[in-house]
Amino acid sequence: MTSVSVASRRGDEYTRLLVRFGCEVVESGAEIVLADPHLVSSLDLSGVRWIQSTWAGVDAIDWSQVPESATVTGLPGVFGQQMAEFVFAYLLGRSQRVPERFAAKSWDETLPGLIAGSSLGVLGAGSIGTAIARVGRAFGVTVVGCRRSAAADQMFDRMHSIDEIGSFAKGLDHLVAVLPATDETRGLVDRRLFEILNRGASFVNVGRGSTVVMSDVIDAARSGQLGLAVLDVTDPEPLPPDHPAWSVPNVVVTGHTAAHSRPEDIVGFFVENLARFASGEPLVGVVDRTKGY
Amino acid sequence: MTSVSVASRRGDEYTRLLVRFGCEVVESGAEIVLADPHLVSSLDLSGVRWIQSTWAGVDAIDWSQVPESATVTGLPGVFGQQMAEFVFAYLLGRSQRVPERFAAKSWDETLPGLIAGSSLGVLGAGSIGTAIARVGRAFGVTVVGCRRSAAADQMFDRMHSIDEIGSFAKGLDHLVAVLPATDETRGLVDRRLFEILNRGASFVNVGRGSTVVMSDVIDAARSGQLGLAVLDVTDPEPLPPDHPAWSVPNVVVTGHTAAHSRPEDIVGFFVENLARFASGEPLVGVVDRTKGY
Repeated sequence: MTSVSVASRRGDEYTRLLVRFGCEVVESGAEIVLADPHLVSSLDLSGVRWIQSTWAGVDAIDWSQVPESATVTGLPGVFGQQMAEFVFAYLLGRSQRVPERFAAKSWDETLPGLIAGSSLGVLGAGSIGTAIARVGRAFGVTVVGCRRSAAADQMFDRMHSIDEIGSFAKGLDHLVAVLPATDETRGLVDRRLFEILNRGASFVNVGRGSTVVMSDVIDAARSGQLGLAVLDVTDPEPLPPDHPAWSVPNVVVTGHTAAHSRPEDIVGFFVENLARFASGEPLVGVVDRTKGY
Repeated sequence: MTSVSVASRRGDEYTRLLVRFGCEVVESGAEIVLADPHLVSSLDLSGVRWIQSTWAGVDAIDWSQVPESATVTGLPGVFGQQMAEFVFAYLLGRSQRVPERFAAKSWDETLPGLIAGSSLGVLGAGSIGTAIARVGRAFGVTVVGCRRSAAADQMFDRMHSIDEIGSFAKGLDHLVAVLPATDETRGLVDRRLFEILNRGASFVNVGRGSTVVMSDVIDAARSGQLGLAVLDVTDPEPLPPDHPAWSVPNVVVTGHTAAHSRPEDIVGFFVENLARFASGEPLVGVVDRTKGY
């Protein structure tokens, strides 16, 4: 029987699911850990060989407590679908004037805008970004990606490396940031980037709050350079009640809910990785601790 | 030079575009007509061989004035993309609580619902329905179709004939009606159909108002059997200000705007058909006047 240590706000649910899959959940000494990133260091990690994160972002891990020999895995492929639903709910909600339509109680023949034929930039074109791109293409949107390496990807009409972020962003109608929190991404999305988008562009941040200069989002939304800013993640979190973002009508803050870890999804991913671990195959979603994702 | 007669509320735009494509626009005697359906019979149709409609639905044509020898074409493929944007704006708008999120000005960690894994029925699985199905699949939705003939279609997980409308609708989470107005479809969507959907299902009508029993939609929305009804088309149109639909919070009426004829799209379609007409090839989108679509 495989022994696993668990540390999570939803520990009971994980324990129940793991037991159903034939695992034994132990307090300490396990080679395998399933944990919320910020709780990893609360566990006995002396004998750990593999840590499976229950979140997509692993920036809350205290790496100083994680043995160099341990493998840490994230959750590629688990959140993309949820993120895509979130992103397109807001892009279409804006173009189709969904809030106004729900409120209207009279015959209104105002024609909606369309996203077909518009351009969407995905900043941070990993597994989540690719899921967003796939849906964008189904809607006839031109999808441009930006990531560390500019290797072509069939889901993107064009791919830029992060050094070309200016060429990437120039003239975009929609910008979606899906960046992890690292030293390199801190404040990467700022007024200079907003200024080269098409006037009135939509901006959606589903990555991490630290990657965006909050005051620059607010200024760009107030000036109309951004027609809409949807911030699922903010800096800080939660956003305090007196933060200026709350007073800007075209800034929508959604409380870090765009994708949530559903224990059944996480355990499904974990169990597939566990089969690989048992047979000595490479794990899926290995985090590079020097990159931080 | 090809001579075309035009009758449209947007006649000036069509004339300008047709001239750009090398056509001559004439008042009468043309073999080819480009017209809004309700204006077809305002033209001299004595020598007409081909009538291209500028709308998707051709039910407003006065067929008694159209020579039996004339071919009438609709616009398959032109409106699907627009309709898909409309449908998913509302399905996602509901699951993601977009109107509430736009209004909320405080940190709210309520998790959104997801459409991935839910079931969507497309009643009237023609070219528009297929475009809706394509996007549904990109979102991981199970898409079931219903049409005159139950021939399998790769965009649908399952296809039913109209005789099996009960099996089609049973247990659906979302029902989208894309039916043309014909004698057979009049009042086809009624309380019996709503009752076999999953409780709280969403219903979207982007076809024709006459296909739905308005009072049954209102009752089903009031009772909660329908969680949301989005009526782009109604019976009558426009819906009078004193109609009971306006007073039901979960009924949204969108003023027949889900898809609109953009002259550049229509003329693009027309010009491709014109090349076929000139070379004697079969036209695309030929309407069967006995069926009415």
